[in-house]
Amino acid sequence: MHPLAERIQQRDMRALARAITLIENDSEDKLRLMSDIFSMKKRAHYVGITGSPGAGKSSLINQLLTYIRSLDLTVAVIAVDPTSPFSGGSLLGDRTRMNQHFMDPGIFIRSMATRGSLGGLARSTKDAIRACDAYGFDVILVETVGVGQSELDIMKVVDTTGLVLTPNSGDVLQIFKAGIMEIADLFIINKADLPGVGKLKATLEEYKMIVNKKRWQPPIVRTISTENKGMEELWDNVAQHQSYLYETDAGEAQRQEQLKLEVYDLIREELWREVRREIDDDQEKQTAFRNTEADPYQLARTWVQNWMNKGE
Amino acid sequence: MHPLAERIQQRDMRALARAITLIENDSEDKLRLMSDIFSMKKRAHYVGITGSPGAGKSSLINQLLTYIRSLDLTVAVIAVDPTSPFSGGSLLGDRTRMNQHFMDPGIFIRSMATRGSLGGLARSTKDAIRACDAYGFDVILVETVGVGQSELDIMKVVDTTGLVLTPNSGDVLQIFKAGIMEIADLFIINKADLPGVGKLKATLEEYKMIVNKKRWQPPIVRTISTENKGMEELWDNVAQHQSYLYETDAGEAQRQEQLKLEVYDLIREELWREVRREIDDDQEKQTAFRNTEADPYQLARTWVQNWMNKGE
Repeated sequence: MHPLAERIQQRDMRALARAITLIENDSEDKLRLMSDIFSMKKRAHYVGITGSPGAGKSSLINQLLTYIRSLDLTVAVIAVDPTSPFSGGSLLGDRTRMNQHFMDPGIFIRSMATRGSLGGLARSTKDAIRACDAYGFDVILVETVGVGQSELDIMKVVDTTGLVLTPNSGDVLQIFKAGIMEIADLFIINKADLPGVGKLKATLEEYKMIVNKKRWQPPIVRTISTENKGMEELWDNVAQHQSYLYETDAGEAQRQEQLKLEVYDLIREELWREVRREIDDDQEKQTAFRNTEADPYQLARTWVQNWMNKGE
Repeated sequence: MHPLAERIQQRDMRALARAITLIENDSEDKLRLMSDIFSMKKRAHYVGITGSPGAGKSSLINQLLTYIRSLDLTVAVIAVDPTSPFSGGSLLGDRTRMNQHFMDPGIFIRSMATRGSLGGLARSTKDAIRACDAYGFDVILVETVGVGQSELDIMKVVDTTGLVLTPNSGDVLQIFKAGIMEIADLFIINKADLPGVGKLKATLEEYKMIVNKKRWQPPIVRTISTENKGMEELWDNVAQHQSYLYETDAGEAQRQEQLKLEVYDLIREELWREVRREIDDDQEKQTAFRNTEADPYQLARTWVQNWMNKGE
């Protein structure tokens, strides 16, 4: 067994942090470590919280943490949002608010670097979630900002995705266009003390009626995170979605599809790691690939054709 | 020659639009089309404009278009920013402002879909730029929003990157953290009639002194796009960076490195296309990859090892 996996099994939090660093850096022995970590899985519930900057995600997660801890569940938070105070990216005031949680041994908070990973950020986030799962957290929260493809991909690796919206923010259209509505299992209207809640709710209801083709009907929950309101209802709805996933054929089908895509991604990443090593060592090719007059499409096509025919 | 490439050579703008759609959809004959398109290259100048939503990028590009056209140069705009009015993503007022350009045959405007591409958005954007180049535009402007990894990648495919900032927006720290400062060849202080210009300029000067290791010193240009001010100075600085790229060893080294990375990306993408087809057709593997109790890391590792040993 990988030494880090062994230490994670012994609930060594520093080993967990180091394992995630190794994952981020695409260390050569990552797949071996991840196999060991996978064998230790305990089926935590993976919950994604997404939404635009300014929707109050961090403040919401902060209150949700307190609520989850009051149920005597342990929680890991993985912040993939570079603007999040969880990843150290915000104002001092925010970070101070978080500090209470940093002292709690039932909470682990970690931000993911937003670049460099070979398999992409979604890939390394999934691996980090698995590491937290192996350690034994009951719940794993992933915070991400709801823009861009990589963020969408991240949300595909969790079990339940909550989309945070605020009244009168004008976010809905943009979020809709970015394809983020479709991946929401739960709509969270935060700052629900602001005017415009009724209108936002109506828009979401309309969306659900017209567009949502899934059997699961995403509930709409109202929260006011600054007043710590709505956390119980929010968490109950997350739990209901979890039950749906584990008790229905739809949940099993979703997990099968996720696994297949994951194996595909891993093969793609690992194959490229091997092939890249070959190319890096091939001096002749290195020279050819730097001839700025050459046609890169032709170079790539020839290389792949030769390589595919190698064993035949 | 690919029929679309032939029609692009004859300056058929609809063929150009169709070629970009084919690129976005990762059509099977993409590499062949791109080889033909590459052979028709005319060395347009590729200019990226990035910055946070709200920095006034679209309005700036709108004025810049008018200025570039006044020099009798033709220009293609590729909008990768989903919030841009160029990609149809903004308020009606903005879009109306753009309409003048839609009627000008010396201007081509196209937005790129933000998802689905096998090789990623940066890859398909690069190919779309090449297609516009083959058509014969003098300048190709790429608009993208300055957040996230995929946006950073896009900026790496252009020759000159302008980073749009506004006074007192608080953007600088976030942009710095996201690694976007490093890729800027030009700082554009837009809305330069607002207070705080001096402070922003000082911050940028300080950054340049401390962090910038490149031989090229990014100039700082002030613009007020709503009053059409600063366009000439902006464009002069873009032209100076172009000269630097084509007259120095640094420029040649940058192009060599870009080409190598491009060939690597293309090989990775094409290899995966071939391999994926094999996996898709392998019924036994398909069943194995859907066993939700199986270890995906182990499955991937075994598959890749077997595949690498095939020809030996």
